[in-house]
Amino acid sequence: MCRWMAYQGEPVYLESLLFKQEHSLIHQSLSARKSSVTVNADGFGLGWYDEREEPGLYHEILPAWSDSNLKSLARHIKSNLFFAHVRASTGTETSRSNCHPFSYKNWLFMHNGQIGGYDDLRWQLDRLIPEYLYGERHGATDSELIFLLMIANGLEENPQNAITDTLLQILTIMKEKRITEPLRFTAVFSDGENIIAVRFSSDDKAPSLFTKKYNDHLVIGSEPLDHCSDSWTQVPAGHMALIKHNTYQIQPLSAKLSDFSLS
Amino acid sequence: MCRWMAYQGEPVYLESLLFKQEHSLIHQSLSARKSSVTVNADGFGLGWYDEREEPGLYHEILPAWSDSNLKSLARHIKSNLFFAHVRASTGTETSRSNCHPFSYKNWLFMHNGQIGGYDDLRWQLDRLIPEYLYGERHGATDSELIFLLMIANGLEENPQNAITDTLLQILTIMKEKRITEPLRFTAVFSDGENIIAVRFSSDDKAPSLFTKKYNDHLVIGSEPLDHCSDSWTQVPAGHMALIKHNTYQIQPLSAKLSDFSLS
Amino acid sequence: MCRWMAYQGEPVYLESLLFKQEHSLIHQSLSARKSSVTVNADGFGLGWYDEREEPGLYHEILPAWSDSNLKSLARHIKSNLFFAHVRASTGTETSRSNCHPFSYKNWLFMHNGQIGGYDDLRWQLDRLIPEYLYGERHGATDSELIFLLMIANGLEENPQNAITDTLLQILTIMKEKRITEPLRFTAVFSDGENIIAVRFSSDDKAPSLFTKKYNDHLVIGSEPLDHCSDSWTQVPAGHMALIKHNTYQIQPLSAKLSDFSLS
Amino acid sequence: MCRWMAYQGEPVYLESLLFKQEHSLIHQSLSARKSSVTVNADGFGLGWYDEREEPGLYHEILPAWSDSNLKSLARHIKSNLFFAHVRASTGTETSRSNCHPFSYKNWLFMHNGQIGGYDDLRWQLDRLIPEYLYGERHGATDSELIFLLMIANGLEENPQNAITDTLLQILTIMKEKRITEPLRFTAVFSDGENIIAVRFSSDDKAPSLFTKKYNDHLVIGSEPLDHCSDSWTQVPAGHMALIKHNTYQIQPLSAKLSDFSLS
Repeated sequence: MCRWMAYQGEPVYLESLLFKQEHSLIHQSLSARKSSVTVNADGFGLGWYDEREEPGLYHEILPAWSDSNLKSLARHIKSNLFFAHVRASTGTETSRSNCHPFSYKNWLFMHNGQIGGYDDLRWQLDRLIPEYLYGERHGATDSELIFLLMIANGLEENPQNAITDTLLQILTIMKEKRITEPLRFTAVFSDGENIIAVRFSSDDKAPSLFTKKYNDHLVIGSEPLDHCSDSWTQVPAGHMALIKHNTYQIQPLSAKLSDFSLS
Repeated sequence: MCRWMAYQGEPVYLESLLFKQEHSLIHQSLSARKSSVTVNADGFGLGWYDEREEPGLYHEILPAWSDSNLKSLARHIKSNLFFAHVRASTGTETSRSNCHPFSYKNWLFMHNGQIGGYDDLRWQLDRLIPEYLYGERHGATDSELIFLLMIANGLEENPQNAITDTLLQILTIMKEKRITEPLRFTAVFSDGENIIAVRFSSDDKAPSLFTKKYNDHLVIGSEPLDHCSDSWTQVPAGHMALIKHNTYQIQPLSAKLSDFSLS
Repeated sequence: MCRWMAYQGEPVYLESLLFKQEHSLIHQSLSARKSSVTVNADGFGLGWYDEREEPGLYHEILPAWSDSNLKSLARHIKSNLFFAHVRASTGTETSRSNCHPFSYKNWLFMHNGQIGGYDDLRWQLDRLIPEYLYGERHGATDSELIFLLMIANGLEENPQNAITDTLLQILTIMKEKRITEPLRFTAVFSDGENIIAVRFSSDDKAPSLFTKKYNDHLVIGSEPLDHCSDSWTQVPAGHMALIKHNTYQIQPLSAKLSDFSLS
Repeated sequence: MCRWMAYQGEPVYLESLLFKQEHSLIHQSLSARKSSVTVNADGFGLGWYDEREEPGLYHEILPAWSDSNLKSLARHIKSNLFFAHVRASTGTETSRSNCHPFSYKNWLFMHNGQIGGYDDLRWQLDRLIPEYLYGERHGATDSELIFLLMIANGLEENPQNAITDTLLQILTIMKEKRITEPLRFTAVFSDGENIIAVRFSSDDKAPSLFTKKYNDHLVIGSEPLDHCSDSWTQVPAGHMALIKHNTYQIQPLSAKLSDFSLS
């Protein structure tokens, strides 16, 4: 599984969260604790917001811990909202175009999970990408595909509906194709202002999703970023967290999704 | 434009053609002579046949002239049939999955040229790839797309028909979409035994394609590989060269293709 | 030869000079105009100052024109003093540790030129690096070596003396070893506030060094960055430009250096 | 710690040992069993002998498990004597010039271990490299340094003496500099015909070194390459294995080395 973190709050240098935490993402990438896959060395990425409307992006195929550029960038880039992601490939190539976060206009997206039977579904799912968005299909991952379908399904106007509709769309095709492997989907979206974090799986093993509230900022992550696991709140499976101005609300995902539960 | 060369004949170390020729491909990659684009530094690749049925492949995104691995591999790999390609991107990303030659089972393919208006056609053309071949779509180039369509159109059974049918298929869609830029296509195929080299363009600027016969081998290239340009035969536009056992025949492509001439 | 540019003035996004100029460095890297070597594809680098004391650094071995990270970083990083460099190797490996600019504490350095007979001198010259600086010897280039010698010779206290002393030190050893190739050295230094640009060669072919003054900023470069070559001032060989607050003074280098003139 | 394996015997495709074994090196690189460091993703390398006198070399900074070139090369390169190495950096940069195996003329060398206090000793140790060998100092690792010192100390004429002399030379300097960290050195050398494997440490934690004899070949490795740990022989610390024609002899290292034991 991949690992990731997102930050919203007072502007900070990225290094304060990427390197200086006890269980920073970079340290995590070297050794897993709550995840079944040991190593996250199949590419990583940063996305951050600043004065410009569209986010900055940095993708690299070297392991995060040995990238000298990352160290310097994280010391010099300051942001009030940023995403970081370390990848453990579920099969597709290690290339920059397969690295998270993905971007579209002012939006960022990153993901941990996978579409069960993706190799058998890619042909059919890629055909759901509308022509006007096809130029944004740079890589071959299920993650980029899901993001493009969410945009096609109205992410910019109504993100909650777009998320539900896209998951339903994929689950329906998985059912038709009699795929028995689950759809696991823990993901984070931002339009540059707010963050939506989703935790879902069609089986009972939704990838983890933790949040922690501080005085002037809020951090969410695939794993707790410090030793005090207790101080982190796990978002329940089948729920999303809506994060605005460093506060968050937890909401259940649409009930329609539970009909596809494989368990 | 990209540059490439192919060799058939007595087994030789790859370096004898890649590095030791006066106008070897590696030297060419640094400075153009007959091509309109100056630099071929957007990835390169090798494909070679040996005792195994499927060819060996080596793709790299560094400029060919600065890749220390290439120097050593070319000194140690011997082959009686190999392809080499240096890329000058026409827009798609510099990544290994966009590097030539492409392979499928025992086949190799590489290409110089481009589908006019590709960005506007990719959505429609990708949909022509049949489901059973879609797993072979690793990158985003028009070159890989053309290769997969040729396979879908019967390359393994009747390569000449497959080539004509695919070019017609693409030209028809270009016409429907009122693309005015040309389809330029100079390409080389091999099944491990014979080589087919095609030179075509829908305008009058087909990318160059040269052949030279030696005692015990034959070389084809996007440009002559030595100073004696005179000793190289240019394959006429709208023709293909069929190369078997170090001899070759020149044949015109199907007359149907001339109907799409844009000139 | 390498190419480079440096900027001092009102804070700007790096892209305004790296990509948006007619003859921006990235365009130059693809095709040479005033330089004898055609391609600058052997690595590139950025160094920039912001609120932090030590500069930010970004080094990459891909050709600059195909690095998607560079595009995004240049759109999001703003600076009032930055360096950019595209490398054409004179022999040493294409690796990040061989990319300019080099840094030490708050200092940046980049260089165009070479020590004649460097391969024969490296053993002797490396031994001049004092022990306390040896940990900064990450690569194998003559450029990094010269920078470390300048630091050893007092760059932080008296840059002008340090430059002269180091060039004399190298020229003396070249003379002892009867090297007939020239020492060519056009270089730029900054402590984060001011810039020193040096143009020197022991023969009459000092690499070019141009400056242009605008209303609120000043640009120096190995080549003019726009079509109006007339509006750029060439610093004479054997001179240095001292740049403070967007103004500059031209001074001759020490007369001692002319004794080593090979011409 | 790094991991490595070496093979001598009937010519085989490299993949049979690199990928097809239960505990192949590539699988090991993902998860450690007997080693204290979890991940070997800081570069890897191959060296192999064939008809040419000097060995073939392939170095890459991507994690071995995600390198598509490695998969193809290992399927197509056959050798009767080869080395493979996956690196876990002890501090120096992840670059190709820091990847093992290192080569000199017909010799290959790879290494697991480290010189205690290397950062404090590099200046002094690098000065021991004689001028005629300094051009071979491409990177900054202690491993390359040790190899060059062994060559300087007569590796080509009398490898056993050269090994002892070099270890003594380093231990003496460590003692002078009052370094308390150990010198750990498990290494493999070959001249293309025979293999020498050394296991040494100045403390009681010499990196592991296993051998296994088969009918027509012999494998040595930093760890056993299959589940039957029992069938692998551990070379005792302070000893070397001399491997000729798929047989081996174990010999103690010079008694002089024990004087430097730190334990």
